[in-house]
Amino acid sequence: MSVATPLAGITVLDFGQVYNGPYCGFLLAQAGARVIKVESPRGETLRGRGQAGSYSFPFTLLNNGKESITLNIKSPEGQRILKELVHHVDVIVENFSPGTLAGYGLGSDVLRKINPRLVYAASTGYGSTGPYRDYLGMDITLQAMTGIMSVTGDDDGPPMKAGAAFCDFLGGVHLYSGIVSALYQREQSGEGATLDISMQDCVFPTLNTQLGVFFQAGEQGPRTGNKHAGLAVAPYNVYAAKDGHVAMISFRDGHWRKLCEAMGQPELAEDERYITAGTRAKNMAAVDELVEAWTSTLSKKEIFALAQSYGMICAPVQDLQDVVNDEHLHERGTLSWTDTGSESPTLAFHTPLRFKDQTPPTLTGVADLGENTAAVLEQFLQLTPEQVEQLRQDKAL
Amino acid sequence: MSVATPLAGITVLDFGQVYNGPYCGFLLAQAGARVIKVESPRGETLRGRGQAGSYSFPFTLLNNGKESITLNIKSPEGQRILKELVHHVDVIVENFSPGTLAGYGLGSDVLRKINPRLVYAASTGYGSTGPYRDYLGMDITLQAMTGIMSVTGDDDGPPMKAGAAFCDFLGGVHLYSGIVSALYQREQSGEGATLDISMQDCVFPTLNTQLGVFFQAGEQGPRTGNKHAGLAVAPYNVYAAKDGHVAMISFRDGHWRKLCEAMGQPELAEDERYITAGTRAKNMAAVDELVEAWTSTLSKKEIFALAQSYGMICAPVQDLQDVVNDEHLHERGTLSWTDTGSESPTLAFHTPLRFKDQTPPTLTGVADLGENTAAVLEQFLQLTPEQVEQLRQDKAL
Repeated sequence: MSVATPLAGITVLDFGQVYNGPYCGFLLAQAGARVIKVESPRGETLRGRGQAGSYSFPFTLLNNGKESITLNIKSPEGQRILKELVHHVDVIVENFSPGTLAGYGLGSDVLRKINPRLVYAASTGYGSTGPYRDYLGMDITLQAMTGIMSVTGDDDGPPMKAGAAFCDFLGGVHLYSGIVSALYQREQSGEGATLDISMQDCVFPTLNTQLGVFFQAGEQGPRTGNKHAGLAVAPYNVYAAKDGHVAMISFRDGHWRKLCEAMGQPELAEDERYITAGTRAKNMAAVDELVEAWTSTLSKKEIFALAQSYGMICAPVQDLQDVVNDEHLHERGTLSWTDTGSESPTLAFHTPLRFKDQTPPTLTGVADLGENTAAVLEQFLQLTPEQVEQLRQDKAL
Repeated sequence: MSVATPLAGITVLDFGQVYNGPYCGFLLAQAGARVIKVESPRGETLRGRGQAGSYSFPFTLLNNGKESITLNIKSPEGQRILKELVHHVDVIVENFSPGTLAGYGLGSDVLRKINPRLVYAASTGYGSTGPYRDYLGMDITLQAMTGIMSVTGDDDGPPMKAGAAFCDFLGGVHLYSGIVSALYQREQSGEGATLDISMQDCVFPTLNTQLGVFFQAGEQGPRTGNKHAGLAVAPYNVYAAKDGHVAMISFRDGHWRKLCEAMGQPELAEDERYITAGTRAKNMAAVDELVEAWTSTLSKKEIFALAQSYGMICAPVQDLQDVVNDEHLHERGTLSWTDTGSESPTLAFHTPLRFKDQTPPTLTGVADLGENTAAVLEQFLQLTPEQVEQLRQDKAL
């Protein structure tokens, strides 16, 4: 199979930190761009105290396949170096606190004047306009602000966060989307662009179901746990299996008929209490009881296979042990175990931007902090190793 | 301000249904592409029973600004029309069940042979390779399969879904990302591509924190509700306010010091029980109690403003009423109220792919089912109105 590198030839300076910016940089790198991660001399938050060869899983996942340089953007010399580097790159990615780079005289206006083809791509909690533009945001607070928490969990408990960092990753992939859109436009116009991606904007549409119910009812109902947001669909729930749980959804009458067959009770499909979406919703408790009486006799894998073979939409509730060993993700090449020699194998994640019959580029590993500083400065700025060393001693790198 | 249309000149056939595909089509339309929504003569699931002018909020949000044509891809004549249309478009978007179009002889191999520049973009639950390739998936079952449910909710309750349809929307925005990457590559190569986006792939990285904790501990711990996944950060929780809740995260010692000042208790920052991340995590219950003793005396808006002015990362838990009226989203132009005449105003959502100092294209409203069928077929296939009417009678449209 050939290797998919749609962004071959593109060079990126990735100032990303933690999840949002680094995920964008990861997608760029896996799409074939040359991604140079730029960190302060101390390294970014997520690199933390990891030493060469022993970075944490979260850092490795997002920074595999990137080069690493250090740059002290607080020093005038560091600022001058960035302004020179900008001549040689296509994209700058950053998810600093709002206005950080501009505060050092390195805002998009300055950098795009130096290189009018530059795509300057920023993602923040709330974007660069509007009353909250200076406010800090991270995944958990965005989950609060966007209403996610208000619709997650049971109604007898507090508002609940989703366990996954959806807001950060939605921000990161929208940032990638904006960058590639700008690069496409640049092919026509010759001009770069400044992106202003707000995590809050990106999360809003994910509440589409709840917003629909809200506008229809004129008010927000109680939280519905694992049930349908509008209590309008049944079966729709998480059901106990012999060895865990399964999730199931039946949004057409046909799904219900197929489930009745799978359960070995085809006559239920003709039962007037359950015959339409409306009557099933009205008799939701009875429907859920019928389904669980069946699921609780089988393993979650058995239910999954059986339901799928009948055309039902169902899946086991996998735990993390299941997920990292998921046979489908491994066979598809999304996950792979990497033998790192003496240590236990580590899990590698490949891009979800998959092209049919094409593999993503190989993951080349995580660069140590500043591993490529000298090479990058020698290539782009024609510095000698001695000059690089001097800059390092001057704390510009 | 100028209007951002990076994809001007691109034409899309959007076979999207429900959320995943239609969100991709929405992003394409708001990026300036001409998006022609293609539905069966009955209309797609989400259009439902809505009549002209009264479509549901969820349908309107995702299909605003698209043209609408009907096409019966089950009929030989409908299949022939699609093969002719393919000469005139750049992109096909679809999130049918796996293999649906191929089953009608309209797979990516057939269509790309007709138009080698075509980008054929499919998103499914599990992708087109691997053992689950034929399995059906929707948001709730993907939340089960990907491990999201296993890390959401309290440990004394069942695995819990996130209230928002993250899996669908992550699928949709990755689909957009892949399409624009392919369009960029086409500028260099002249060739189209086939995208194979799996929702399961797209969700995996969002569990980065939990996976890090999992690999470090060698096993999955109990669900931690609103607390940090590794119980390693405090304050990190949802706290009661006078009128609801706020979410707060303090991942650096500096955040804690600032919070102590905001609480009017700067001496707490010197208290050895709370002085490092490690001691705060160890004394998490006491930390949470201290914070909530303060938050419960103030309104959530007061806490938000105060915390942000001290450089803390905090946000109110907004409900849907708050969200649709969010002053920031409205001032930023992400949301706007549209006066639809006699009815109550409806909420319009604009693209999160925002360019600085540029507005997204105007939302032109939702097309009725098949509203543009005649115009599109007359333009691309040079059919007469009579021929279109005949095709309609023959149930090809």
